[in-house]
Amino acid sequence: MLPDEQLLMKLSCDKIFSLMIQSIKYTFWVMLIAGLGFIAIALTPDAEQTDAAMFKKIFNEALTNGKSYSNLDYLTNKIGGRLSGSINALKAVEWAFKAMKEAGADSVYLQECMVPHWVRGEKETAKIIFDGGKSAKIVPICALGGSVATPAEGITASIIEVKSFEELAQLGKDKIKGKIVFFNSPMDPKYLETFEAYGGAVKFRWAGASEAVKYGAVGVVVRSCTLAQDDYPHTGVMGYKDSLNKIPACAISTNGAILLSESLAANKNPEFYFKMSCQTLPDEISYNVVGEIYGTTQSNEYVIVGGHLDSWDTGAGAHDDGAGVVQSMEVLRIFKALGIKPKCNIRAVAFMNEENGGRGGEKYAEWAKINKEKHIAAIESDAGGFTPRGFNSEVTPIQKEKLKSWKPLFEPYGIHNFDRNGSGADLKHLQEMGVPCLELMPDSQRYFDYHHAATDVFQNVNKRELELGGAAMAALVWMIATHGL
Amino acid sequence: MLPDEQLLMKLSCDKIFSLMIQSIKYTFWVMLIAGLGFIAIALTPDAEQTDAAMFKKIFNEALTNGKSYSNLDYLTNKIGGRLSGSINALKAVEWAFKAMKEAGADSVYLQECMVPHWVRGEKETAKIIFDGGKSAKIVPICALGGSVATPAEGITASIIEVKSFEELAQLGKDKIKGKIVFFNSPMDPKYLETFEAYGGAVKFRWAGASEAVKYGAVGVVVRSCTLAQDDYPHTGVMGYKDSLNKIPACAISTNGAILLSESLAANKNPEFYFKMSCQTLPDEISYNVVGEIYGTTQSNEYVIVGGHLDSWDTGAGAHDDGAGVVQSMEVLRIFKALGIKPKCNIRAVAFMNEENGGRGGEKYAEWAKINKEKHIAAIESDAGGFTPRGFNSEVTPIQKEKLKSWKPLFEPYGIHNFDRNGSGADLKHLQEMGVPCLELMPDSQRYFDYHHAATDVFQNVNKRELELGGAAMAALVWMIATHGL
Repeated sequence: MLPDEQLLMKLSCDKIFSLMIQSIKYTFWVMLIAGLGFIAIALTPDAEQTDAAMFKKIFNEALTNGKSYSNLDYLTNKIGGRLSGSINALKAVEWAFKAMKEAGADSVYLQECMVPHWVRGEKETAKIIFDGGKSAKIVPICALGGSVATPAEGITASIIEVKSFEELAQLGKDKIKGKIVFFNSPMDPKYLETFEAYGGAVKFRWAGASEAVKYGAVGVVVRSCTLAQDDYPHTGVMGYKDSLNKIPACAISTNGAILLSESLAANKNPEFYFKMSCQTLPDEISYNVVGEIYGTTQSNEYVIVGGHLDSWDTGAGAHDDGAGVVQSMEVLRIFKALGIKPKCNIRAVAFMNEENGGRGGEKYAEWAKINKEKHIAAIESDAGGFTPRGFNSEVTPIQKEKLKSWKPLFEPYGIHNFDRNGSGADLKHLQEMGVPCLELMPDSQRYFDYHHAATDVFQNVNKRELELGGAAMAALVWMIATHGL
Repeated sequence: MLPDEQLLMKLSCDKIFSLMIQSIKYTFWVMLIAGLGFIAIALTPDAEQTDAAMFKKIFNEALTNGKSYSNLDYLTNKIGGRLSGSINALKAVEWAFKAMKEAGADSVYLQECMVPHWVRGEKETAKIIFDGGKSAKIVPICALGGSVATPAEGITASIIEVKSFEELAQLGKDKIKGKIVFFNSPMDPKYLETFEAYGGAVKFRWAGASEAVKYGAVGVVVRSCTLAQDDYPHTGVMGYKDSLNKIPACAISTNGAILLSESLAANKNPEFYFKMSCQTLPDEISYNVVGEIYGTTQSNEYVIVGGHLDSWDTGAGAHDDGAGVVQSMEVLRIFKALGIKPKCNIRAVAFMNEENGGRGGEKYAEWAKINKEKHIAAIESDAGGFTPRGFNSEVTPIQKEKLKSWKPLFEPYGIHNFDRNGSGADLKHLQEMGVPCLELMPDSQRYFDYHHAATDVFQNVNKRELELGGAAMAALVWMIATHGL
């Protein structure tokens, strides 16, 4: 053997030895990974099969034995609209207590809270007056929630149209003083999600009066927040700034807004007349209704689902938010019907006073803090009883990824969107306490056709769409209660 | 230098040379790939941006200037139900011709075809008779399309309920002869897609009479194909076997079916009475209406969109299939409004006679063959004017993959499902000729509430949902016309 060959041999031996060592190392890692993979493979499909099988059971139960539709029938048709502080709201509390029991809750209780008590009074009237009173056209309006009344004889004044607060400011006191301001900013139909369009338009309803009064306006008329073109005015909460005068504020139907705008554009110099007798009475006692299924571990941990029990008085609060309430109860019913025994406690919460105060949501969070409850997650349904499409969430990025990893389980049920941020209004205080908060996201195309209007009634809710939403919430509660978040 | 070193040197040189050659080769490939990659990168986002920008334009146009809703208003409220062979069907042809022109078609023409002419006659009546006639309950029925009439005095007979053809066969002549057979097999609510549930129930409507007559039945009553529980009977086509006697066949509302079933279960031995004066008249002349935008290349290549112009007479054919017709016209309008100049020709086809014969679809395919037209793709909308969720297709696996690769463009518009197979009934003959066929798949939850019933009217169609479906079709036509399929 030549020296170089020896060298080569030596090198080769070293190499082979090194390769052997490497090979052993590799083998170790490969076996470890394979082993882990095997364990993962052995576990994952089983877990997935269990989850998929449970999803099937949950959706079948909702679609064949569902009680959400008959519950909604009762709430909307036997009780009807139920604004905070009203007799109807108390009737709804009483009904919800019983319905939670019937859904199978192990325990049902009330959480007392003080709520605003605004009443609409007599049906509002309004007209566009032409030629100094020679002719007039009646237009449908309704008082915005929280508005003061007009004087008993109504208000008659010149009316001026604006499309934005900037335009209002430019017109200034010279042009505004003594007039009624007509905010005519339609919801933008180009948004695919109608809630985004709502977000752009609702500021005039909320702040129109307090902005207009700065320039001496005597009243405001706000185009209804809806994408439908029809004769229904849509109410909703408005607010005053304490430092400013309070002027009456109403919503006008979209057809009315179009007529009014055309009358102004045609230089007919119409006047506007409206009369409202609404008023704010002292706060009333009311309640959240909480139904609970006890977890097997007797822990202080909770997954909650909820909707709000109060509604506007113009309609029957079917989509907003009777749907969310009956879907939340349905989650309890489905769990009981299928004999699911979750480790943590599951709560359905019918929040009071989402529409004009949010006192119920505040009270719930207060009690959660006092009782040192750990909320694993809170889910609200308050976007209507339409076909569910996904869940919005306000969670950590890791939790978001976990949610998204469950998408394949939801997709066979048409639920495909877990990307968006957002959660329910009643969960605001829980969210501030760091609770992962979510909301059911149904198809949004029809929501604002009915929202806060006389058309928000039972017959505009489809049974299956409502049931699917409840099932979607039950499936998500199952996942969170079983796998954490 | 030692000889071995020389050798090594030689080896090294060879190696280096070989490496250099390899390196050059690699460099060539790397540069080629990088170059191609660069071109791809340079092109792809641009193409995608162009497509995404065009999608935005298309959806904005549909949601802000859309004409599908007002067109549907005219078709359903000014014309109404339009069964093949009726005066209304001819009025609809006349209207569609004008509407295609107004949508901006470069050319509009009719395709003549002979269609069946079945007429309902007087409004049908039916009752469940108890105690040999001492009491009775009226139940809502309607004749199934194609049924023969009852004798002028109606039919009164014992009635027997079956859930399946197997049960019917087991009962046999002994139990069936001289009786009315009541097919009471509800659509299964557990299917997420209601069309699947329909598929399981519609056979009794189609073949119930010809199966029951084998055992001597004198008439059939079929539970309406709907998931709604209400008082509306749902018609639809039925067929006879030429070799068998023809017995009258009607649909009963679901509430009626439940009452009838309960009466039978309670051993009240009710009889059933029904009276219908429907009849089949000689075939009539009718037409497909075809509107066309000329492609820039003056080729014989086509992408077509369509719906069917005829409808059942019980309602106004709003979802079935006024929606598909006005959405197809809207595709032309959007292309014209946006100044899109497709390379190939784009056609909107309003097919005649989908409901009870399919003669229009057959005629269209016949002309396509005679004129040696190359159809790149054919898309139908015939599943209602609800929020679009995806496209079903009957295409090659490669075409399916291409369709799926477009999903990211559609997802911002809530259109997420390209997996399912299927296409429109009017496209059957094109499909047999090898044309890639697709259909718009909207949310299906509400469809069978209205399908073939008096409730299939304009006010049950949501403007935005209808518009989004038309935009979805326009977007798909854009993709196919621009990138092929």
